[in-house]
Amino acid sequence: MKHTISVLVENKFGVLARIAGLFSARGYNISSLAVAETFEQDISHMTIVVDAQDEKILEQIKKQLNRLIDVIMVVDFTKKEHSERELILSKVNYSAKNKAKLKALLDKYQAKIIQCKDETAVIEFSGEQQEIKQLVHELEQFGVKELVKTGRIAIAS
Amino acid sequence: MKHTISVLVENKFGVLARIAGLFSARGYNISSLAVAETFEQDISHMTIVVDAQDEKILEQIKKQLNRLIDVIMVVDFTKKEHSERELILSKVNYSAKNKAKLKALLDKYQAKIIQCKDETAVIEFSGEQQEIKQLVHELEQFGVKELVKTGRIAIAS
Repeated sequence: MKHTISVLVENKFGVLARIAGLFSARGYNISSLAVAETFEQDISHMTIVVDAQDEKILEQIKKQLNRLIDVIMVVDFTKKEHSERELILSKVNYSAKNKAKLKALLDKYQAKIIQCKDETAVIEFSGEQQEIKQLVHELEQFGVKELVKTGRIAIAS
Repeated sequence: MKHTISVLVENKFGVLARIAGLFSARGYNISSLAVAETFEQDISHMTIVVDAQDEKILEQIKKQLNRLIDVIMVVDFTKKEHSERELILSKVNYSAKNKAKLKALLDKYQAKIIQCKDETAVIEFSGEQQEIKQLVHELEQFGVKELVKTGRIAIAS
Protein backbone atom coordinates (compact mmCIF):
# COMPACT_ATOMS: atom_id res chain seq x y z
CA MET A 1 0.00 0.00 0.00
CA LYS A 2 1.27 3.42 -0.95
CA HIS A 3 1.73 5.83 1.96
CA THR A 4 2.08 9.57 1.57
CA ILE A 5 4.14 11.00 4.40
CA SER A 6 4.79 14.65 5.07
CA VAL A 7 7.91 15.62 7.04
CA LEU A 8 8.88 19.09 8.24
CA VAL A 9 12.64 19.38 8.77
CA GLU A 10 15.35 21.86 9.64
CA ASN A 11 17.14 22.48 6.37
CA LYS A 12 20.61 21.48 7.51
CA PHE A 13 23.41 19.70 5.67
CA GLY A 14 22.82 16.01 5.53
CA VAL A 15 19.18 15.84 6.70
CA LEU A 16 17.98 14.62 3.32
CA ALA A 17 20.69 11.95 3.14
CA ARG A 18 19.84 10.78 6.68
CA ILE A 19 16.12 10.56 5.96
CA ALA A 20 16.65 8.78 2.63
CA GLY A 21 19.04 6.44 4.48
CA LEU A 22 16.37 5.51 7.05
CA PHE A 23 14.17 4.15 4.26
CA SER A 24 16.89 2.45 2.21
CA ALA A 25 18.42 0.77 5.28
CA ARG A 26 15.16 -1.16 5.62
CA GLY A 27 14.95 -1.98 1.94
CA TYR A 28 12.20 0.58 1.39
CA ASN A 29 12.30 2.38 -1.90
CA ILE A 30 10.92 5.90 -2.03
CA SER A 31 8.67 6.04 -5.10
CA SER A 32 8.38 9.81 -5.09
CA LEU A 33 9.82 12.64 -3.07
CA ALA A 34 9.16 16.38 -3.18
CA VAL A 35 11.34 18.67 -1.08
CA ALA A 36 11.01 22.45 -0.99
CA GLU A 37 11.77 25.35 1.29
CA THR A 38 8.96 26.84 3.37
CA PHE A 39 8.12 30.40 4.39
CA GLU A 40 10.39 30.04 7.37
CA GLN A 41 14.06 30.29 6.75
CA ASP A 42 15.95 27.02 7.24
CA ILE A 43 12.81 24.90 7.37
CA SER A 44 12.00 22.53 4.52
CA HIS A 45 9.01 20.40 3.77
CA MET A 46 9.23 16.89 2.31
CA THR A 47 6.46 14.77 0.84
CA ILE A 48 7.52 11.14 0.65
CA VAL A 49 5.52 8.46 -1.16
CA VAL A 50 6.56 4.97 -0.19
CA ASP A 51 5.16 1.55 -1.01
CA ALA A 52 4.96 -0.15 2.38
CA GLN A 53 5.01 -3.91 2.07
CA ASP A 54 5.10 -4.27 5.85
CA GLU A 55 3.14 -1.75 7.93
CA LYS A 56 5.14 -2.60 11.06
CA ILE A 57 8.41 -1.62 9.42
CA LEU A 58 6.84 1.63 8.23
CA GLU A 59 5.77 2.35 11.82
CA GLN A 60 9.38 1.84 12.91
CA ILE A 61 10.63 4.18 10.18
CA LYS A 62 8.13 6.85 11.24
CA LYS A 63 9.25 6.52 14.87
CA GLN A 64 12.86 6.86 13.85
CA LEU A 65 12.04 9.86 11.68
CA ASN A 66 10.43 11.49 14.72
CA ARG A 67 13.56 10.80 16.73
CA LEU A 68 15.90 12.58 14.28
CA ILE A 69 16.99 15.85 15.83
CA ASP A 70 16.29 17.88 12.66
CA VAL A 71 12.78 16.50 12.15
CA ILE A 72 10.05 18.84 13.41
CA MET A 73 6.91 16.95 12.42
CA VAL A 74 5.85 13.74 10.66
CA VAL A 75 2.34 13.23 9.24
CA ASP A 76 1.17 10.04 7.52
CA PHE A 77 -1.76 11.07 5.31
CA THR A 78 -2.82 7.50 4.57
CA LYS A 79 -5.71 7.36 7.02
CA LYS A 80 -6.47 11.08 6.96
CA GLU A 81 -8.72 12.98 4.59
CA HIS A 82 -6.46 14.86 2.24
CA SER A 83 -5.90 16.09 -1.31
CA GLU A 84 -2.96 14.96 -3.42
CA ARG A 85 -1.68 16.59 -6.59
CA GLU A 86 1.29 16.23 -8.90
CA LEU A 87 2.69 18.36 -11.70
CA ILE A 88 4.00 17.09 -15.04
CA LEU A 89 5.78 18.69 -17.96
CA SER A 90 5.68 16.74 -21.19
CA LYS A 91 7.06 17.27 -24.66
CA VAL A 92 4.93 15.98 -27.50
CA ASN A 93 4.88 16.22 -31.29
CA TYR A 94 2.93 19.21 -32.47
CA SER A 95 2.34 19.61 -36.17
CA ALA A 96 -0.26 21.34 -38.31
CA LYS A 97 -1.79 17.88 -38.74
CA ASN A 98 -2.44 17.10 -35.05
CA LYS A 99 -2.80 20.67 -33.71
CA ALA A 100 -6.61 20.76 -33.43
CA LYS A 101 -6.81 17.29 -31.93
CA LEU A 102 -4.12 18.01 -29.34
CA LYS A 103 -5.74 21.32 -28.37
CA ALA A 104 -9.10 19.62 -27.87
CA LEU A 105 -7.49 17.02 -25.62
CA LEU A 106 -5.68 19.66 -23.57
CA ASP A 107 -8.90 21.67 -23.18
CA LYS A 108 -10.65 18.59 -21.82
CA TYR A 109 -8.03 18.26 -19.07
CA GLN A 110 -7.43 22.00 -18.61
CA ALA A 111 -3.80 21.37 -19.49
CA LYS A 112 -1.68 24.17 -20.98
CA ILE A 113 0.85 24.46 -23.78
CA ILE A 114 3.68 26.53 -22.33
CA GLN A 115 6.00 26.42 -25.33
CA CYS A 116 6.03 25.52 -29.01
CA LYS A 117 9.19 25.03 -31.03
CA ASP A 118 10.24 22.93 -34.02
CA GLU A 119 6.96 20.99 -34.15
CA THR A 120 7.22 20.19 -30.43
CA ALA A 121 4.92 21.43 -27.69
CA VAL A 122 5.71 21.50 -23.96
CA ILE A 123 2.61 20.71 -21.92
CA GLU A 124 2.03 21.61 -18.27
CA PHE A 125 -0.58 19.77 -16.25
CA SER A 126 -1.31 19.29 -12.57
CA GLY A 127 -3.89 16.94 -11.18
CA GLU A 128 -4.61 13.74 -9.31
CA GLN A 129 -2.74 10.53 -10.10
CA GLN A 130 -5.61 9.07 -12.07
CA GLU A 131 -6.02 12.17 -14.27
CA ILE A 132 -2.28 12.32 -14.96
CA LYS A 133 -2.26 8.67 -15.91
CA GLN A 134 -5.19 9.17 -18.30
CA LEU A 135 -3.77 12.33 -19.88
CA VAL A 136 -0.35 10.74 -20.43
CA HIS A 137 -2.07 7.72 -21.95
CA GLU A 138 -4.05 9.96 -24.32
CA LEU A 139 -0.92 11.96 -25.19
CA GLU A 140 0.83 8.81 -26.38
CA GLN A 141 -1.01 8.95 -29.72
CA PHE A 142 0.83 12.22 -30.47
CA GLY A 143 4.23 10.84 -29.53
CA VAL A 144 5.54 11.67 -26.05
CA LYS A 145 9.20 12.70 -26.36
CA GLU A 146 9.79 13.57 -22.73
CA LEU A 147 7.94 13.44 -19.41
CA VAL A 148 9.07 15.00 -16.13
CA LYS A 149 7.08 14.71 -12.91
CA THR A 150 7.38 16.44 -9.54
CA GLY A 151 6.18 13.61 -7.35
CA ARG A 152 3.03 14.10 -5.26
CA ILE A 153 2.35 16.68 -2.62
CA ALA A 154 -0.49 16.42 -0.12
CA ILE A 155 -2.49 18.73 2.12
CA ALA A 156 -4.95 17.71 4.85
CA SER A 157 -8.63 18.43 4.18
CA MET B 1 23.70 31.17 -8.32
CA LYS B 2 20.89 28.63 -8.39
CA HIS B 3 21.46 25.62 -10.62
CA THR B 4 18.73 23.27 -11.77
CA ILE B 5 20.13 19.81 -12.38
CA SER B 6 18.28 16.87 -13.82
CA VAL B 7 19.48 13.36 -12.98
CA LEU B 8 18.19 10.08 -14.39
CA VAL B 9 18.89 7.16 -12.04
CA GLU B 10 18.26 3.48 -11.58
CA ASN B 11 15.70 3.32 -8.82
CA LYS B 12 17.66 1.12 -6.42
CA PHE B 13 17.88 1.13 -2.66
CA GLY B 14 20.16 3.83 -1.42
CA VAL B 15 20.63 5.85 -4.64
CA LEU B 16 18.81 8.85 -3.21
CA ALA B 17 20.82 8.75 0.02
CA ARG B 18 24.08 8.51 -1.97
CA ILE B 19 23.19 11.44 -4.22
CA ALA B 20 22.03 13.60 -1.32
CA GLY B 21 25.24 12.63 0.47
CA LEU B 22 27.40 13.86 -2.45
CA PHE B 23 25.98 17.37 -2.01
CA SER B 24 25.97 17.47 1.78
CA ALA B 25 29.54 16.15 2.03
CA ARG B 26 30.64 19.37 0.29
CA GLY B 27 28.45 21.59 2.44
CA TYR B 28 25.99 22.08 -0.40
CA ASN B 29 22.38 22.35 0.63
CA ILE B 30 19.75 21.17 -1.82
CA SER B 31 17.10 23.88 -1.91
CA SER B 32 14.55 21.80 -3.75
CA LEU B 33 14.33 18.25 -4.97
CA ALA B 34 11.69 16.45 -7.01
CA VAL B 35 11.98 12.69 -7.52
CA ALA B 36 9.48 10.58 -9.42
CA GLU B 37 9.31 7.33 -11.31
CA THR B 38 9.46 7.41 -15.11
CA PHE B 39 7.73 5.35 -17.80
CA GLU B 40 10.47 2.79 -17.54
CA GLN B 41 10.35 0.45 -14.62
CA ASP B 42 13.14 0.99 -12.10
CA ILE B 43 14.22 4.32 -13.56
CA SER B 44 13.59 7.51 -11.62
CA HIS B 45 14.05 11.12 -12.52
CA MET B 46 15.36 13.73 -10.05
CA THR B 47 15.32 17.50 -10.42
CA ILE B 48 17.76 19.08 -7.98
CA VAL B 49 17.94 22.83 -7.34
CA VAL B 50 21.11 23.85 -5.57
CA ASP B 51 22.60 27.20 -4.68
CA ALA B 52 26.19 26.93 -5.89
CA GLN B 53 28.49 29.33 -4.09
CA ASP B 54 31.50 27.85 -5.85
CA GLU B 55 31.08 26.74 -9.46
CA LYS B 56 34.22 24.58 -9.30
CA ILE B 57 32.81 22.50 -6.46
CA LEU B 58 29.57 22.09 -8.37
CA GLU B 59 31.55 20.82 -11.37
CA GLN B 60 33.19 18.26 -9.08
CA ILE B 61 29.81 17.16 -7.73
CA LYS B 62 28.45 16.74 -11.27
CA LYS B 63 31.49 14.67 -12.24
CA GLN B 64 31.00 12.47 -9.18
CA LEU B 65 27.30 12.11 -9.95
CA ASN B 66 28.22 10.89 -13.43
CA ARG B 67 30.58 8.36 -11.89
CA LEU B 68 27.91 6.78 -9.64
CA ILE B 69 27.00 3.40 -11.06
CA ASP B 70 23.24 3.99 -10.77
CA VAL B 71 23.31 7.38 -12.50
CA ILE B 72 22.30 7.22 -16.16
CA MET B 73 22.41 10.90 -17.13
CA VAL B 74 23.13 14.31 -15.60
CA VAL B 75 21.95 17.58 -17.20
CA ASP B 76 22.65 21.03 -15.77
CA PHE B 77 19.94 23.32 -17.19
CA THR B 78 21.65 26.52 -16.06
CA LYS B 79 23.14 27.49 -19.39
CA LYS B 80 20.52 25.75 -21.53
CA GLU B 81 17.20 27.11 -22.74
CA HIS B 82 14.53 25.46 -20.65
CA SER B 83 11.18 25.86 -18.91
CA GLU B 84 10.79 25.50 -15.15
CA ARG B 85 7.56 25.01 -13.25
CA GLU B 86 6.51 24.24 -9.68
CA LEU B 87 3.21 23.22 -8.10
CA ILE B 88 1.81 24.56 -4.83
CA LEU B 89 -1.16 23.65 -2.67
CA SER B 90 -2.24 26.31 -0.20
CA LYS B 91 -4.94 26.54 2.42
CA VAL B 92 -6.45 29.99 2.91
CA ASN B 93 -9.37 31.50 4.77
CA TYR B 94 -12.51 31.49 2.67
CA SER B 95 -15.57 33.24 4.04
CA ALA B 96 -18.65 34.89 2.52
CA LYS B 97 -16.83 38.16 3.13
CA ASN B 98 -13.72 37.49 1.04
CA LYS B 99 -15.18 34.99 -1.46
CA ALA B 100 -15.53 37.34 -4.44
CA LYS B 101 -12.14 38.94 -3.90
CA LEU B 102 -10.37 35.59 -3.61
CA LYS B 103 -12.09 34.24 -6.73
CA ALA B 104 -11.05 37.31 -8.73
CA LEU B 105 -7.45 36.84 -7.61
CA LEU B 106 -7.46 33.13 -8.52
CA ASP B 107 -8.96 33.91 -11.95
CA LYS B 108 -6.14 36.36 -12.59
CA TYR B 109 -3.57 33.61 -12.01
CA GLN B 110 -5.66 30.74 -13.44
CA ALA B 111 -5.39 29.08 -10.03
CA LYS B 112 -8.05 26.60 -8.90
CA ILE B 113 -9.95 25.95 -5.70
CA ILE B 114 -9.88 22.17 -5.28
CA GLN B 115 -11.69 21.98 -1.95
CA CYS B 116 -13.78 24.11 0.42
CA LYS B 117 -14.49 23.14 4.00
CA ASP B 118 -15.14 25.02 7.27
CA GLU B 119 -14.39 28.43 5.76
CA THR B 120 -11.11 27.16 4.32
CA ALA B 121 -10.22 26.75 0.66
CA VAL B 122 -7.45 24.58 -0.77
CA ILE B 123 -5.84 26.25 -3.77
CA GLU B 124 -3.86 24.51 -6.52
CA PHE B 125 -1.50 26.50 -8.70
CA SER B 126 1.41 25.70 -10.96
CA GLY B 127 3.66 28.26 -12.58
CA GLU B 128 7.06 29.86 -12.71
CA GLN B 129 8.89 30.91 -9.55
CA GLN B 130 8.01 34.57 -9.98
CA GLU B 131 4.29 33.91 -10.45
CA ILE B 132 4.19 31.60 -7.42
CA LYS B 133 5.93 34.22 -5.31
CA GLN B 134 3.46 36.90 -6.41
CA LEU B 135 0.38 34.72 -5.91
CA VAL B 136 1.50 33.64 -2.42
CA HIS B 137 2.18 37.27 -1.58
CA GLU B 138 -1.31 38.26 -2.73
CA LEU B 139 -2.87 35.33 -0.85
CA GLU B 140 -1.41 36.58 2.40
CA GLN B 141 -4.18 39.16 2.76
CA PHE B 142 -6.66 36.26 3.10
CA GLY B 143 -4.58 34.44 5.69
CA VAL B 144 -2.44 31.57 4.45
CA LYS B 145 -2.85 28.62 6.84
CA GLU B 146 -0.68 26.14 4.98
CA LEU B 147 1.56 26.03 1.93
CA VAL B 148 3.08 22.92 0.36
CA LYS B 149 5.36 23.02 -2.67
CA THR B 150 6.72 20.33 -4.97
CA GLY B 151 10.06 21.90 -5.80
CA ARG B 152 10.81 22.81 -9.41
CA ILE B 153 10.95 20.56 -12.41
CA ALA B 154 12.56 21.54 -15.71
CA ILE B 155 12.41 20.52 -19.35
CA ALA B 156 14.75 21.58 -22.15
CA SER B 157 13.29 23.90 -24.80
